[in-house]
Amino acid sequence: MCELLGMSANVPTDICFSFSGLIQRGGATGPHVDGWGISFYEGKACRTFKDSLPSCESRIARLVESYPIKSRAVIGHIRQANRGAVKLENTHPFIRELWGRHWTFAHNGQLNGYRRLRTADFTPIGNTDSERAFCWILAQLRERYRTRPQNMQPSFRFIGRLCHRLRELGVFNMLLTDGNHLMAYCCSTLHWITRRAPFGQATLKDRDWQIDFAKETTPNDVVTVIATQPLTVDEEWHAMKPSEFHVFRGGEVII
Amino acid sequence: MCELLGMSANVPTDICFSFSGLIQRGGATGPHVDGWGISFYEGKACRTFKDSLPSCESRIARLVESYPIKSRAVIGHIRQANRGAVKLENTHPFIRELWGRHWTFAHNGQLNGYRRLRTADFTPIGNTDSERAFCWILAQLRERYRTRPQNMQPSFRFIGRLCHRLRELGVFNMLLTDGNHLMAYCCSTLHWITRRAPFGQATLKDRDWQIDFAKETTPNDVVTVIATQPLTVDEEWHAMKPSEFHVFRGGEVII
Repeated sequence: MCELLGMSANVPTDICFSFSGLIQRGGATGPHVDGWGISFYEGKACRTFKDSLPSCESRIARLVESYPIKSRAVIGHIRQANRGAVKLENTHPFIRELWGRHWTFAHNGQLNGYRRLRTADFTPIGNTDSERAFCWILAQLRERYRTRPQNMQPSFRFIGRLCHRLRELGVFNMLLTDGNHLMAYCCSTLHWITRRAPFGQATLKDRDWQIDFAKETTPNDVVTVIATQPLTVDEEWHAMKPSEFHVFRGGEVII
Repeated sequence: MCELLGMSANVPTDICFSFSGLIQRGGATGPHVDGWGISFYEGKACRTFKDSLPSCESRIARLVESYPIKSRAVIGHIRQANRGAVKLENTHPFIRELWGRHWTFAHNGQLNGYRRLRTADFTPIGNTDSERAFCWILAQLRERYRTRPQNMQPSFRFIGRLCHRLRELGVFNMLLTDGNHLMAYCCSTLHWITRRAPFGQATLKDRDWQIDFAKETTPNDVVTVIATQPLTVDEEWHAMKPSEFHVFRGGEVII
């Protein structure tokens, strides 16, 4: 399968620590060698780094690991291919514009019968089940809400129901964001943790790196990190249950 | 204004040499300090690097300059802002999906009355005249051709006519690609050069770098580079005339 990484924060925050743990699983401590990608939102803009090389060997991953891009919303992914060949066009996350925003999506799992999903004007570029599921979600959203709804709450619940339908096709853990809200759907495995004052120490599971968040943050910072498997060994991560759906904004759970 | 860079090649080719010349103009030998970006096509996928920092100071630009990504189609841009603030969402190139392909666009110039351009479902994310013009071109294309035409020639001529209409709004030099074809429209200033066997030497204008293309290529390679101003001092570049429109494919002019 694959591994997912997400972040929602109330202040621009870098994800170097978590990303550094994750990319070890792309060939060093884990088998996810079929490419990786990560998208950072900065305002309404979104900057994506991708590679079809294993993350633990990628020169671009080394840049991202050492270059603190400050963001309020991030989605990352390391891939172990099942549907779709190992190439850049099949590398997550996938991005499309809807309602004047970049939407970014990454998936862990495997779907059957996904070719029947109608995607209207959101045409997949690669041939993964994941990108097609993403295009289908966006097509459903645009069909229901022609423009960005003033109140986003009903649209989040609608997205939750779409995820339930995709789960009926197989394994569907996903992260989705419009840059403001980070949505997480668990089908089988997904964990999250919210860090806030008083901040403590954390130690990565996959490499030798311990951080004291108290030194890196201000007392008002709220940062939620979501990952397929916990990235640290000395913190308590919430395990999401099958069919659980959450929306985060500014690091806080709002649904 | 800004400066544009494009490449069309018949074999995957890196653009390190030309890019290295261009980025000097982002703060060292030129005034284009308001961000930069470059998109590389690899198959149907497209990988973009962007920064709102001046290119001559950007760590990401240094990676791109020294990391030979092989591509058949590239569009790059360094920005000197006029319409739209200096931030990442206003940084070229802009990218959207149409007909199951990434389309990439960069613009040099300034348009008046651009807010009246209707963009249908291609909603701008930033607030530049450039992104709106790009969204308008795509909206016009989708309205005329619901799906990718089998024969692209009439659609290229249609794009040429759209460029003429945009030119009526001000200064409009542009590069546009779907990854296979690279379109170039000149309103005021745009130059191109095709390199093929027998290959010779070239010396950058903006920094001390001379290359012997004979050592970097095979006899069948055909590579066209397009730039606002010639990037080398010892080669003959074609100066495009106002209203001239070309389409390149595999390094060759096809329109």
